[in-house]
Amino acid sequence: MDPTNLKKTGFASLSTMADAMAGFLARVQPAGATEEVHIDASLGRVLAEAICARWPVPSYDKSAMDGYAIQATDSFGASVQKPCVLRLGGGIVIGDEPAMAVSRGVAIKIATGAMIPPGADAVIKIEDTELDTDGTTIRLYKQVAPGGNIIRSGEDYKEGHLVLPAGRKIRPQDVGVLATLGMTRIKVITRPVVAVFATGNELVELDGLHHDTAGLVDPRTAGRCKMVDSNRHAIGAFVSIAGGVVTRAQILVDDERAISDAIISALTACDMVITTGGTSVGERDFIPSVIGKDHEILYHGIAMKPGAATLLGTGQGKPILGLSGFPVAAEIGMLYFGMPAIRKLAGEMVLDPRVRVRARLADAVAVKGFGITRLLRVELDHDTSTENDLPRAIPVKLSGAGMQRSMVESDGFIEIPPDIEGYEAGDDVVVVLHPC
Amino acid sequence: MDPTNLKKTGFASLSTMADAMAGFLARVQPAGATEEVHIDASLGRVLAEAICARWPVPSYDKSAMDGYAIQATDSFGASVQKPCVLRLGGGIVIGDEPAMAVSRGVAIKIATGAMIPPGADAVIKIEDTELDTDGTTIRLYKQVAPGGNIIRSGEDYKEGHLVLPAGRKIRPQDVGVLATLGMTRIKVITRPVVAVFATGNELVELDGLHHDTAGLVDPRTAGRCKMVDSNRHAIGAFVSIAGGVVTRAQILVDDERAISDAIISALTACDMVITTGGTSVGERDFIPSVIGKDHEILYHGIAMKPGAATLLGTGQGKPILGLSGFPVAAEIGMLYFGMPAIRKLAGEMVLDPRVRVRARLADAVAVKGFGITRLLRVELDHDTSTENDLPRAIPVKLSGAGMQRSMVESDGFIEIPPDIEGYEAGDDVVVVLHPC
Repeated sequence: MDPTNLKKTGFASLSTMADAMAGFLARVQPAGATEEVHIDASLGRVLAEAICARWPVPSYDKSAMDGYAIQATDSFGASVQKPCVLRLGGGIVIGDEPAMAVSRGVAIKIATGAMIPPGADAVIKIEDTELDTDGTTIRLYKQVAPGGNIIRSGEDYKEGHLVLPAGRKIRPQDVGVLATLGMTRIKVITRPVVAVFATGNELVELDGLHHDTAGLVDPRTAGRCKMVDSNRHAIGAFVSIAGGVVTRAQILVDDERAISDAIISALTACDMVITTGGTSVGERDFIPSVIGKDHEILYHGIAMKPGAATLLGTGQGKPILGLSGFPVAAEIGMLYFGMPAIRKLAGEMVLDPRVRVRARLADAVAVKGFGITRLLRVELDHDTSTENDLPRAIPVKLSGAGMQRSMVESDGFIEIPPDIEGYEAGDDVVVVLHPC
Repeated sequence: MDPTNLKKTGFASLSTMADAMAGFLARVQPAGATEEVHIDASLGRVLAEAICARWPVPSYDKSAMDGYAIQATDSFGASVQKPCVLRLGGGIVIGDEPAMAVSRGVAIKIATGAMIPPGADAVIKIEDTELDTDGTTIRLYKQVAPGGNIIRSGEDYKEGHLVLPAGRKIRPQDVGVLATLGMTRIKVITRPVVAVFATGNELVELDGLHHDTAGLVDPRTAGRCKMVDSNRHAIGAFVSIAGGVVTRAQILVDDERAISDAIISALTACDMVITTGGTSVGERDFIPSVIGKDHEILYHGIAMKPGAATLLGTGQGKPILGLSGFPVAAEIGMLYFGMPAIRKLAGEMVLDPRVRVRARLADAVAVKGFGITRLLRVELDHDTSTENDLPRAIPVKLSGAGMQRSMVESDGFIEIPPDIEGYEAGDDVVVVLHPC
């Protein structure tokens, strides 16, 4: 055997992570379907159309304070030593239209939020006034400028102003402004529908096994070498956070024909297909051959760890994501490829909203070999964050793509670039936070 | 009038924000009720009990690679120049128990994830071997140490190991490990149930108005001075993100008796009561008098802006949160008091999970007057974040507690402490990110 050929049974070449992400997402097109939901079900959904102000917000001039509506000139020169005196002309009940107008020398009592009466151009705060004992005149102890303590109609949004763009993921404060604009139903993008298939004869379905009264299942009752297909449940949760929904999830037997049929059928019914397992280059790794024959492989073999065996493809114009069967590699594939693809299918503006925070590395990290992006799982210790220092990033000391614990016990990744050999303890690093 | 008394109609004194937060939360007790949900409905819920590994994970020794299971000593000294030769003793199908054992001089073909056969103590990668043409012997071109390429049973979790603590909010990767542990149903804390009451005669219910075929409502059809009670919808969304659920939401007329009755009834049926409006010191601000008479006021008047008129109380052992009617002040009250209280009711470990990121302030910010914590809304411009600099924090140039836009267009707050007069452009600041 020619020793230079020894490695050739692995991946012939690896794509960079950046190329794979960009190239895969470039081939994902928004699914386009929309639906209407009640405003109280709109949180976290993606707006299908831009929202403009249907009227000025607020829709009328209102008082910002409890006080008296006056003509500002009537307060000019007023001080504690030399108050101005105005006649009390009545009061305005909040929610009612003012029944009277303010004229020179007249003050009308007004509550915060009540409509400014005609003729008034300022509100003087109640703290800056005193009502005489007979209740007919008030003294002003301060002067107030024209427009003082008045919230103008349109101060928040002018009529027609763009309030929220299409593709915006709706936040709680957005729900508030949609209500202010009188929208009971919101037009949103329909959640992308995802199929999740697992391959691997060692897998059993959690819901397919006998469970005891506490809902507990022991996969070993199906055989000493059996384990639960846990990936489908984790992937379903990641899909949900990205705004999609898993409508079919199934274990496929290690048979090319069965895998081919299941994927073709799912591509017709769903917006995206995700598989786990069988993406490597072993003889029973059928995903690459099936996708290569029936559809199109965009990337297979990516210079990242964990996740090198990820396959990115497309079929019937829809994204196909072939994840490793190893839980951590599968989860990383979801975070870097799956969730951005679902967000693009959903027409969302931001494809990867994960937060990046600076941190100080607690321990030295050494990396073996160049050319691969390493996704180091770290825990953030916020207790060490002071005004003068960053939170500590503590590497989770568990290697291996199979270690679920490294994802469960970490807060995020340090993305170690391919050209870096490692970091020193105390280095300033960026941590990409896991979604939660 | 004694000029020193001029301000006395406002709040007599203000509590610090830190005192109010700590003192209010100290009085909130976990509601305690639990329920079981299917694992696929457990994302984002709070674990009611600690989860320990019910068996070692993985539950059997397995191969980390495609290759051959061998006795490591059989590979000692192997090199490309001087390969060791072993007899092929068969193969192991993944998911099946090995039918044969490995003895000296024998190699058994094994796929990634398959169970290590008895007698073997290492796996040699297929890339480091060659099968002879007659298919009966393999040559090893490398040596492998005992334990090499074997994932040991219990390497991820030993039996009995604490996997997830009680009070943990379940993340996608946690769902995966719960599935691995064979848990079909998960015991979680019941969502805290919240009542939301609005006071203010200017308010109308979005769902109570006539809406056109597009679901649009114009509150001005109910009167020129009317506006939608938008706070209830935004608050409902914040409650939902914190893990609670709003079960009653209602506009109350400005009548002490009606407000008193509604709050007493809600405290019996719900875990928490939130009100909006009527918390200031005006003559129609009934919330303080009602809470003070029927229940207990913990804090009223807080040295923060927006949100100074927030009232924090307790009744029937349950938290009462009196928010300003101004949308931004109400939303800030939810972020700093309401959501942490809901999380504590739900038994969650982390009461305020908002992320804090460092940023560089784009514009100078001046603050008038000492003694008040200012919550400056800022937008983060990530495009300016480089390896050597922080993202820019751009103040949203909209003052006023009524401006919904300042929350809609911002990514977070700079919390300007009471003893700071402002910041210079270019200052290194911390931004507390809004939840999304």
